Amino acid sequence: MTRTLSRAACIGGGVIGGGWIARFLLDGTDVAVHDPHPDARRIIGEVLDNARRARARLISAPPVPEGRLSFHDDIAGAVEGAEYIQESVPERLDLKHKVFAAIEAAASPEALIGSSTSGFKPSELREGATHPERIFVAHPFNPVYLVPLVELVGSGPQDEAVLDRAADILARTGMHPLKIRREIDAHIADRLLEAVWRESLWLVKDDIATTQEIDDAIRFGFGLRWAQMGLFETYRIAGGEAGMKHFIDQFGPALKWPWTKLMDVPEMTEELSAKIAAQSDAQSGQHTIRELERIRDDNLIGILHALRANGWGAGETLRAMEERAFAQAHARAAHAAPDPAAPLELHRAKVGGDWLDYNGHMTEFRYLQVFGDATDAFLGHIGMDAGYRAQGLSVYTVETHIRHLAETGAGADLTVRTTLLGFDAKRIRLHHEMIDGSGTVQATAEHMLMHVDTTAGRACPMGAPLIDRLAALAPGQSALPAPDHAGRPIRDIGWPLGEPA
Amino acid sequence: MTRTLSRAACIGGGVIGGGWIARFLLDGTDVAVHDPHPDARRIIGEVLDNARRARARLISAPPVPEGRLSFHDDIAGAVEGAEYIQESVPERLDLKHKVFAAIEAAASPEALIGSSTSGFKPSELREGATHPERIFVAHPFNPVYLVPLVELVGSGPQDEAVLDRAADILARTGMHPLKIRREIDAHIADRLLEAVWRESLWLVKDDIATTQEIDDAIRFGFGLRWAQMGLFETYRIAGGEAGMKHFIDQFGPALKWPWTKLMDVPEMTEELSAKIAAQSDAQSGQHTIRELERIRDDNLIGILHALRANGWGAGETLRAMEERAFAQAHARAAHAAPDPAAPLELHRAKVGGDWLDYNGHMTEFRYLQVFGDATDAFLGHIGMDAGYRAQGLSVYTVETHIRHLAETGAGADLTVRTTLLGFDAKRIRLHHEMIDGSGTVQATAEHMLMHVDTTAGRACPMGAPLIDRLAALAPGQSALPAPDHAGRPIRDIGWPLGEPA
Repeated sequence: MTRTLSRAACIGGGVIGGGWIARFLLDGTDVAVHDPHPDARRIIGEVLDNARRARARLISAPPVPEGRLSFHDDIAGAVEGAEYIQESVPERLDLKHKVFAAIEAAASPEALIGSSTSGFKPSELREGATHPERIFVAHPFNPVYLVPLVELVGSGPQDEAVLDRAADILARTGMHPLKIRREIDAHIADRLLEAVWRESLWLVKDDIATTQEIDDAIRFGFGLRWAQMGLFETYRIAGGEAGMKHFIDQFGPALKWPWTKLMDVPEMTEELSAKIAAQSDAQSGQHTIRELERIRDDNLIGILHALRANGWGAGETLRAMEERAFAQAHARAAHAAPDPAAPLELHRAKVGGDWLDYNGHMTEFRYLQVFGDATDAFLGHIGMDAGYRAQGLSVYTVETHIRHLAETGAGADLTVRTTLLGFDAKRIRLHHEMIDGSGTVQATAEHMLMHVDTTAGRACPMGAPLIDRLAALAPGQSALPAPDHAGRPIRDIGWPLGEPA
Repeated sequence: MTRTLSRAACIGGGVIGGGWIARFLLDGTDVAVHDPHPDARRIIGEVLDNARRARARLISAPPVPEGRLSFHDDIAGAVEGAEYIQESVPERLDLKHKVFAAIEAAASPEALIGSSTSGFKPSELREGATHPERIFVAHPFNPVYLVPLVELVGSGPQDEAVLDRAADILARTGMHPLKIRREIDAHIADRLLEAVWRESLWLVKDDIATTQEIDDAIRFGFGLRWAQMGLFETYRIAGGEAGMKHFIDQFGPALKWPWTKLMDVPEMTEELSAKIAAQSDAQSGQHTIRELERIRDDNLIGILHALRANGWGAGETLRAMEERAFAQAHARAAHAAPDPAAPLELHRAKVGGDWLDYNGHMTEFRYLQVFGDATDAFLGHIGMDAGYRAQGLSVYTVETHIRHLAETGAGADLTVRTTLLGFDAKRIRLHHEMIDGSGTVQATAEHMLMHVDTTAGRACPMGAPLIDRLAALAPGQSALPAPDHAGRPIRDIGWPLGEPA
């Protein structure tokens, strides 16, 4: 696990700066902010609202306690004591130079200084700096609290160590740092975006397509591919067994064909600007920006979850982030030492919009997902971790009895209260109660778990620490009243309306 | 529901042609193929294998019986009797003209003729045709059996009716037809791709980034956004409350900045081609093309499922496709009249790689997902459909008892055998048995379902057709032996190793 950053400073807190603040705060880092904009606190607050909502849905691990957010009237106050400073002020080089001078006058000489600039190169940013070598580009993508990519750019090979330090800090917040080999205007991603943007402007200007049609050509087509593989890997597959070289050589001639208008740049006239705005209103005007943000975030979360399930790309970044969060939660739980004579609260979950069924309530199987995660949290609590499983031992659920007691809706904050109902050498009997934020019981589950030798594929006695920790829990847990419904079957209701043949 | 296409012809059966064949066949359409390539059957077979595997994971509805696939030695034999003809031969205009002439000589004059061309315009394709007005561009995206976009291009406003007919046919196979307003070289999506491709070639040539780094800049960044929203909607959000016009006006000046090298075209020298191939090998060479195809397909399926859950973009296309498949399955089931005195087989599922847990078996909650889908299939079977639910009536699960009997692995073909255990005016008691392809029971579930007035939020008596169909099932179902474990509770195992305090 990489080192926890204790204090970060963010200079500039718009949509991008606010996204950085959220990344750091929700990872437990204290964040000191300077932004002279009169609406800065409101804008940052809105980004933080979105980020907290997204984080709760994105990660099933219990949330890390947030860092402390402070606002400062000047740059000096914000950067004092910060280990990492992120600049996100408007894209004017003279302004950035003034900000860096003020940062350097007050910051520790060891503090790292990243810039969110889309276009400027580190060599331009560093002009006139006292310690130019620790100023670099750390270019994120909106929404910063969900999209993992951050481009790290230095001025040359001598900056490797600084970029590695920055990569280590930013990876910890769930980002995917990409170190760029050489500085260049607009780095990498924005160059690709700029190419698509310029071509798209021609298509709109020449009435080949509207903004809606261009967006649809992306999101129903190659955009689905690019969430998981980029340009080259996608083409490698398209090329088939003949290999990449063969494919490239075939593709080459198209470079001479008139397939793009990018030999020229469209003039952004008042007419073109108004046309795009009108088309965009027709396309998306039925949603407010706030609604679009939430739709975007929910989709990003779903896409990241899909990639996590497949162990691929940005899903792997998410999985690493989540494992860190689980490890931290277990470390906190070990310190907290919950009351052994009370139900154990080891798992929480938030009901996402994608968890609903056609009745508008949480889909049936999501109840078992939450209960299964609570079972995993209990097993982690008694010491079943990756090391225990690496011995070829695990615990399987063999029997489950669920009772649905309420209609759980979107956004519900669920807590699972777990009681140990009994155990023997190979088996554990658990009861879970799922309550919402108001304390109403939504559902209960009773489980029989079996300890197994996964290689042999059969039940076997538990080892330490599992059996020891269960024995330690036994006095308190066995004294709790067993729920009435535990050990009861589903009732026979007979055939009152139709007689057997 | 749009009309079922009874017979399609595919001329050319490479990766793209094979994808078209799979789209049509798996939708129940007979497909006649002509492809003189000696390996055509093998290549088409491989695409079909991928497509069948993907379809089983993509759609939870029972599969439509496949159409009949036939191979023909000449174009005339393939196109005879076809309502829709898709041309996917290599990108040479003289070859395409020859193919169209042969098609027109044998095809019905009403048959639609779509071309998979990436670059040619309809006006070019139509040169010399007898019935030029029914030749148009239908440009799909790889893998054709999963990516919904198809660009439909005609030569002008007079082609509207032909494109509408084609859109109707193709939408039925789960595609998202995008009608392009005016013909242009490379249509829309490939123009955007070509711009990114040219810029990427410069980045590789100038050693700014490797193919892996460019792909990562896409898939960890804007690629995640583009799976759901395109360029303009994404920027609309970035622009915030100030509106699209304000954003565009701010963005405008960047058009004059040196953010792309697209004013010039890189020369595809032997050196550049070899460099890209070597970098691609280093990036992706550890996977075979077949492995990459499956990774890509599983990721696409996960992304499409995530978007379906959120009711957005390509997820809506998938939902519509799935609803058609369910409607067809119900229509077939109504005809088939299953034996009322045997367990009902109403639901099948295939275990995807994304359904596994850290033990390598199907995750606990996915068992309930399959059982829940089987319950929905049973409810559909007794007449609970969207029309019934529109009355404010539904059926909720109130109690569930699952027994896990085997370790279900990836790729398993699951069938659920459902028995009615009893019912009364408001309740239904069901038993499901989940078997794999070998007939081994993987798990069982017993459910108590409650019929509810969803507006009042309380139980209420069932109406017709539910109660009538249950009564009709009763004689046969009640004569079946009840499973031993039905109506049994989870056992009390006590505290043999730890004594209560």
